[in-house]
Amino acid sequence: MTTTAAAQTTVVSYGLGPIGAGIASLALDRGYRIVSAVDISPDKAGHDLGALLGRPELGVTVTADAAAALALRPQVVLHSTQSHMPQVMPQLLACIEAGACVVSTCEELAFPWHQHAAEARRLDEAAKAHGVTVVGVGVNPGFVMDLLPIVLTAPSRTVRAIRVTRVVDAGLRRKPLRRKVGDGLDRAAFEQGVAEGRIGHVGLAESVAMIAEALAWPLDSISEMIEPVMEGTTVRGLHQVANGLRGGEAVISLDLTMAVGAQNPRDAVTIEGEPPIAMTVAGGIHGDIATCAVTVNAIPIVLTAPPGLTAVHRLPAIHR
Amino acid sequence: MTTTAAAQTTVVSYGLGPIGAGIASLALDRGYRIVSAVDISPDKAGHDLGALLGRPELGVTVTADAAAALALRPQVVLHSTQSHMPQVMPQLLACIEAGACVVSTCEELAFPWHQHAAEARRLDEAAKAHGVTVVGVGVNPGFVMDLLPIVLTAPSRTVRAIRVTRVVDAGLRRKPLRRKVGDGLDRAAFEQGVAEGRIGHVGLAESVAMIAEALAWPLDSISEMIEPVMEGTTVRGLHQVANGLRGGEAVISLDLTMAVGAQNPRDAVTIEGEPPIAMTVAGGIHGDIATCAVTVNAIPIVLTAPPGLTAVHRLPAIHR
Repeated sequence: MTTTAAAQTTVVSYGLGPIGAGIASLALDRGYRIVSAVDISPDKAGHDLGALLGRPELGVTVTADAAAALALRPQVVLHSTQSHMPQVMPQLLACIEAGACVVSTCEELAFPWHQHAAEARRLDEAAKAHGVTVVGVGVNPGFVMDLLPIVLTAPSRTVRAIRVTRVVDAGLRRKPLRRKVGDGLDRAAFEQGVAEGRIGHVGLAESVAMIAEALAWPLDSISEMIEPVMEGTTVRGLHQVANGLRGGEAVISLDLTMAVGAQNPRDAVTIEGEPPIAMTVAGGIHGDIATCAVTVNAIPIVLTAPPGLTAVHRLPAIHR
Repeated sequence: MTTTAAAQTTVVSYGLGPIGAGIASLALDRGYRIVSAVDISPDKAGHDLGALLGRPELGVTVTADAAAALALRPQVVLHSTQSHMPQVMPQLLACIEAGACVVSTCEELAFPWHQHAAEARRLDEAAKAHGVTVVGVGVNPGFVMDLLPIVLTAPSRTVRAIRVTRVVDAGLRRKPLRRKVGDGLDRAAFEQGVAEGRIGHVGLAESVAMIAEALAWPLDSISEMIEPVMEGTTVRGLHQVANGLRGGEAVISLDLTMAVGAQNPRDAVTIEGEPPIAMTVAGGIHGDIATCAVTVNAIPIVLTAPPGLTAVHRLPAIHR
């Protein structure tokens, strides 16, 4: 999209956590016209968006009142609040009913049909009724462990299994991520955090389900396991695996390690089939920068996509 | 696509050279209903398609008469004849006028707007008038050196340059490819072959132009060079480079080596930007298998795409 076209595209930034703030900042860099921004935190609501982002004042005041922001009828909402569908449903429906396309980093929205089929249907119907497109994006889920392996099967005559390994050195990443992976806890606290849903990567099962749908592979089930990565008695991060099972075999296997000091950080995709394909991104794709970027890069694509709830593999290539 | 859906999709195979035959065979494996096949070679016309492919007889006789095959009004034509737009224009227009979507391995059709804008406009108008979708596909051009780098910019905040290196050991490939890269010639014969258009990879400039369009990078020019890979005084293959130039800098650089005995065969994509991305497919993606597969894998995508002449990066992800 040209800068001129971007300047004519009205945007609301919904959620100004570390990722949401990065998204808003990049949208401004690209020349998009942010007409309002929403955040419920008292540290943010009432402040100028530009100032909050460490930029010149914009004359756009962050509001805790989403309805007021959406009343400006933006063309697009860049949504970055929570990870789970039930949490974001009212927010997404309000955006849709205001006639806005939505690009969201909500992890479960990347492929909601698996675990939240009823909510997905409701969003799809609302989006079609209001003529807007809704999509969940991100680097993971949304790219490295699902879209990229799907795209890599384009040259495949046959595919027997798909294996993805992502290793992230959490020591190089922001604090919320280190907290999310349990860094510094002991094993009991880690396990409690997992049980309470505070620790763990959200979206691995969604990635499995997206790949299975694309390949038209009916799965018997999706299994998930999570364990701490220990250094002595201290947790340094997590190791999480989701498998898509068919006939007792893991035909889709997604293996994620996010730990402080993790060795050989990388994204690796193996397509077992004809031809065999073994892809590696050395160092891995940086999650925070990438999630902000893919969100903003998706704007021109959603603006021209057919209305409804969609998923990244059903859209034309999102690109810089 | 399910086998049932495939069995309801009528297909004409247009061109039964090594790639076209591979495409037809895979389409049959997938359950597509091939209603006719076209080839002008006297070795093929008049023979049963199944027998020609080394399969059971199909009761489908290969014909040299494209008009007769297209009169059956297939939904899709899988087209694999020649590499250059002027050669294939009458063939493509006949398919379009018969109301068929076209998936073609014609290299220049992968991104025809660069060198053949008038022909591209004509195809687009005809395809829209007849409500069909036309696309050029393949592993190169069409995937490794253009679509894959475009997709890999999805997580990019900024991109300064894109570099792709493809190294193919032509010794592992079919004879026509070894001939196309000049294997066994002396330098003078190689250079004459290049001058006459018999030697050289077609599509590198198209790949540069596709990337430039996707990234909205206006290029000053696209430069191309080709040189032989020598073993003593014998040519073993070619080294070909296409650069997209802006302000004197090669912001897109595609470097292709196809030679018998080429070391470290691979596909490598480097996105210079933020974040930096360095991807490698060890061994590279096998061109012949991949081109046949991507052609057949594109069928469900073109059948549901908006009418017109399109390109792979403007379509939803083609996948197995």
